Amino acid sequence: MDENIYDVIIIGGGPAGITAGIYACREKLKTLLVAKGFGGQVARKAVAIENYPGFEEISGVELIQRFKNQLKSVGAEIKQDEIRKIEKIEKGFNLLTVGGEKFQTRAIIISSGADPRHSEAEGEKEFIGKGVSYCTLCDAPMFQDKIVAVLGGGNAGFEAALALTNYAKKIYILEYADKVNADEDNQEMVYNSGKIEVIVSSVLKNIQGERFVNSIVYQDRKSMEMRTLNVQGVFIEIGSQPVISFVNSWVEFNERDEIKIDPKTCETKTPGIFAAGDVTDVMLKQIIVAAGEGAKAAISARNYLRFMKK
Amino acid sequence: MDENIYDVIIIGGGPAGITAGIYACREKLKTLLVAKGFGGQVARKAVAIENYPGFEEISGVELIQRFKNQLKSVGAEIKQDEIRKIEKIEKGFNLLTVGGEKFQTRAIIISSGADPRHSEAEGEKEFIGKGVSYCTLCDAPMFQDKIVAVLGGGNAGFEAALALTNYAKKIYILEYADKVNADEDNQEMVYNSGKIEVIVSSVLKNIQGERFVNSIVYQDRKSMEMRTLNVQGVFIEIGSQPVISFVNSWVEFNERDEIKIDPKTCETKTPGIFAAGDVTDVMLKQIIVAAGEGAKAAISARNYLRFMKK
Repeated sequence: MDENIYDVIIIGGGPAGITAGIYACREKLKTLLVAKGFGGQVARKAVAIENYPGFEEISGVELIQRFKNQLKSVGAEIKQDEIRKIEKIEKGFNLLTVGGEKFQTRAIIISSGADPRHSEAEGEKEFIGKGVSYCTLCDAPMFQDKIVAVLGGGNAGFEAALALTNYAKKIYILEYADKVNADEDNQEMVYNSGKIEVIVSSVLKNIQGERFVNSIVYQDRKSMEMRTLNVQGVFIEIGSQPVISFVNSWVEFNERDEIKIDPKTCETKTPGIFAAGDVTDVMLKQIIVAAGEGAKAAISARNYLRFMKK
Repeated sequence: MDENIYDVIIIGGGPAGITAGIYACREKLKTLLVAKGFGGQVARKAVAIENYPGFEEISGVELIQRFKNQLKSVGAEIKQDEIRKIEKIEKGFNLLTVGGEKFQTRAIIISSGADPRHSEAEGEKEFIGKGVSYCTLCDAPMFQDKIVAVLGGGNAGFEAALALTNYAKKIYILEYADKVNADEDNQEMVYNSGKIEVIVSSVLKNIQGERFVNSIVYQDRKSMEMRTLNVQGVFIEIGSQPVISFVNSWVEFNERDEIKIDPKTCETKTPGIFAAGDVTDVMLKQIIVAAGEGAKAAISARNYLRFMKK
């Protein structure tokens, strides 16, 4: 066996990729993980994670450090770089990196994650983890009896607002267009909630505060008037962007640019290419789910490689 | 809303059930978890767990204690009992317990797990975690350069033996029947491995040792002769039995008695009944996978309940 050919290359260093790496190494696959950085959205979370089983409360940085140490302890090779292109070759694939390297592998696991879409509002990045959140499932419990705004009048925004009704005392939904495009179901529940106010034709201009968010400023697109709302939280729900620039046509995508997988096995349409976590059409974008999907992808890759070796 | 009606009742206290409970409570669903005990197969593991991301090494007992504390911290109700029967009623389901209680709920998550099938061999239970294992993915790395036996000549046994070739220096597969029934693929790989010896027509009689396993005794069913093999490990791969006695016809099963689910959403054929973890046909029976599936089931149940409340 050629020393320079990997059994599997994992693209991405979030929970899905790291877990895939742990499982692949324990199955004695020659494994390389290529990532620009570790942790993806987890490492950027400034507030504690409370929904990863095993830790009542842990920072994203610490959880990812633990994942990473475990990956190293099982002997994975790690390369800090970005994949630029996948090429199909007779015995597998070549991966070309932004850094100018070329790696050969028999199988690939794509776990490059997704980035939340950001608004144009001033202060959004400054207050991430200090009132600005991209995950109601993670952060809603912190807003007990607070007033919050949700940016985005699609299903994601409406569902975030509904989840927030369990905690917040008042929720504004801000939508740029002149009407919302959430499903009727969601609209009805929002209008019946008694806690949610929908503001259409609005542009979020500014998120402001001292240490934490205390208000937002939006512009009414009809009157052009600027208005201030006192809120302690802002949930940005205008979609996310899977990291897929290097993937090309080796896989199929759904309408949200997520990689379509067989939900049972994490297989894509190309034999030898698997995908796991937030870059895929998995129903729930959560650390525990991404990790579970990474384990599945690694074992599917192992099964594929066993079959190929015959 | 009637105080005594739960939004969701989770059946089973393993990683799938506990994670479902954590997610359901954080979504403010009125949640009850009914289980005979906590941890399922995890809590019975006597060796360290090394493939749950977040912990390089942790005992099953400790991991489950952490899961359980987290479940309590989010306010789940817990009842130590066993479900005897599910009844459909107009607004959901009644659950009848072995202890004689009746609980009403709008949705159910079945996460009752599976038990490994045991052999009739003497000493099997005594040496669990001391050489006897039911999980090669978990325990193979402990048998570096050791001699091990695998009980079972089906695909599970052959795949366990193949995984063990990465660590053990010699592997016996013992099969009761006069020929093995693993797939041709697996048979070819086993015969080509150079490390695996298949012994058909054999009955495992005894697993013995001092503190740890040091040998097994089997009977050749043709000659009736008793033979001893020096081994340090015994992997029991004769199948597992999903815990489904109470489920009846509310769900569909595959040929291994596993509950068929929509792999994307954990839905069963009955609206309002979800299933997650080792009791289902999920491809990989692993803690991290079960936990991820539990999270999916809880959010699917939440989505179902939102829809029903309209």
